[in-house]
Amino acid sequence: MEKITLAHGSGGKLMHQLIDSVFLEQFSNKILREKKDSAVFSLGQTRFAFTTDSYVVDPLFFPGGDIGSLAVYGTVNDLSVCGARPRYLACGLIVEEGLDRGIVERIARSIRNAALKAGVEVVTGDIKVVERGHCDKLFISTSGIGIVDRMTDLSLDRVRIGDSVIASGTIGDHAISILSQREGLNLGSRIVSDSAPLNGLTARIVSVSRHVRFMRDPTRGGLAATLNEIVTKRKFGIVIDERALPIRPSVKTACELVGFDPLSLANEGKIVVIVGQQDARRVLSVMRSHRYGTAARVIGKIVPGPAGKVILNTSVGSRRIVEMPSGEQVPRIC
Amino acid sequence: MEKITLAHGSGGKLMHQLIDSVFLEQFSNKILREKKDSAVFSLGQTRFAFTTDSYVVDPLFFPGGDIGSLAVYGTVNDLSVCGARPRYLACGLIVEEGLDRGIVERIARSIRNAALKAGVEVVTGDIKVVERGHCDKLFISTSGIGIVDRMTDLSLDRVRIGDSVIASGTIGDHAISILSQREGLNLGSRIVSDSAPLNGLTARIVSVSRHVRFMRDPTRGGLAATLNEIVTKRKFGIVIDERALPIRPSVKTACELVGFDPLSLANEGKIVVIVGQQDARRVLSVMRSHRYGTAARVIGKIVPGPAGKVILNTSVGSRRIVEMPSGEQVPRIC
Repeated sequence: MEKITLAHGSGGKLMHQLIDSVFLEQFSNKILREKKDSAVFSLGQTRFAFTTDSYVVDPLFFPGGDIGSLAVYGTVNDLSVCGARPRYLACGLIVEEGLDRGIVERIARSIRNAALKAGVEVVTGDIKVVERGHCDKLFISTSGIGIVDRMTDLSLDRVRIGDSVIASGTIGDHAISILSQREGLNLGSRIVSDSAPLNGLTARIVSVSRHVRFMRDPTRGGLAATLNEIVTKRKFGIVIDERALPIRPSVKTACELVGFDPLSLANEGKIVVIVGQQDARRVLSVMRSHRYGTAARVIGKIVPGPAGKVILNTSVGSRRIVEMPSGEQVPRIC
Repeated sequence: MEKITLAHGSGGKLMHQLIDSVFLEQFSNKILREKKDSAVFSLGQTRFAFTTDSYVVDPLFFPGGDIGSLAVYGTVNDLSVCGARPRYLACGLIVEEGLDRGIVERIARSIRNAALKAGVEVVTGDIKVVERGHCDKLFISTSGIGIVDRMTDLSLDRVRIGDSVIASGTIGDHAISILSQREGLNLGSRIVSDSAPLNGLTARIVSVSRHVRFMRDPTRGGLAATLNEIVTKRKFGIVIDERALPIRPSVKTACELVGFDPLSLANEGKIVVIVGQQDARRVLSVMRSHRYGTAARVIGKIVPGPAGKVILNTSVGSRRIVEMPSGEQVPRIC
């Protein structure tokens, strides 16, 4: 009988297959089929976004964050990339018997501070405790509700050939931060997770251009997964330029050391923006003036072909296909 | 250092202390302080209820249900008792590496069927996979959004001395069902969980009376916890009549066998309703005509004193205080 593997939770090919075969098949409804980071729907006179995510990151505390702030920002970001203004969060904890109460309190404080920083309120919650050995210390599930402006219409269907692909900053920081903390790797300099709330940044982006087509945060599966999600089954492809990819030298070194592709590494404070070429400069400019977008770059563009493929023009002048990641690079990343 | 124990997740005294000290202190906001089963707030022109719960029930499949349907109905019920019409659910899975894919598919089908039965849509979801031994097979977190009618105003502040306390049916079925399945107890007859969606029942109740003060589903901690939550820090108490309590003979027998108090046992398809005495008969009548309320009974009333206490008039003519449960009777119940 087929077994669930870590790769089924990696953000890559197997996860998409599992979600398609198990969830989309069972729950086929119009909202779910859009496969956005959040469900977007109207209730009464208002348009909402609604999202959920579970956080199982190991270790609970890492350079640049912890499971509490990660859970808040992750949910805030899933709402933000759909063009929503995040408002209310729900927060459920699964705690392992025997965990220090002090750790739960420290994580609760982190959730509080992250919510304050993101301008959202935690309005409802739940705690479950399971026997020792039946979960790994503590898991968090967060859900969030945001309001979507009537004028904001972000969808893959709006992407056009010629559009620019922008990345908001350096890639791979989160994954390498977790990995170096977990494995005790000495990578020379300390790499800090980029975990951050992006609602301020996304609000600015949609406020300066009506030609923003689509935004997504490249978390599990990294930029490779996000770009492939954009082109899969579409009549266009993406070409990106390796020299334009913002990657910290320390992350590049770490990747070479352990054999990782930075394109497949999770980020927790970055977005990819697809925008009409006529507004690329304007969007780039407001992004760079925001603290979470200072290193924003146009990294590529939407091209007629090869359709459904992501092509990387490498720094040595060759071309290669960037595949949807298929295995598990770093488990328990978020 | 103080450790988290199973009792911190039991629905009883320690859980309330943990929630008060960790969550209410950190996240003090008006919505959270109301401590309803769902957060209720207005956005735009619409009033919403929003709730979350994590499900860790062991075993995954039990007589009368499974973790999937339990998660859907639990969230539907938390919205329903706040007077909301449940609409959209979000569903996050945490899966242990090595679990049969067939089990995930079976649970997904159960979630689908339960959602259909309850008239809600699962619109967004998430899957995480953790290493073998780092969670127990599969956990589910569900969140839900419902719409609250402008006219519906359910709150403990509206409870008045003289109000009737109604239970919608037999108590303890869910807990004993789980326990007998888990421990392989042979209890003579098979006891089936009462897990069910109560939105139809609650909608009927609020439609026939403007004097419904408060509703709650007595899950973890059972009737004892729910009734104590109603009177805690209030200037009134509750008296209930043991002879009026609907309890199946098989559940009573099981409780005597293992030394449980049926009042403290979890239910997953029952509600407690506080209603002005003038409308008690009318509410009881619509409840009994609904499939999930056929055994509804007035079990007690709101009394001036002893304030803050729940008193049981026993079948042998004595009186005892029903305490907020303090330990853990049956862990991993939901």
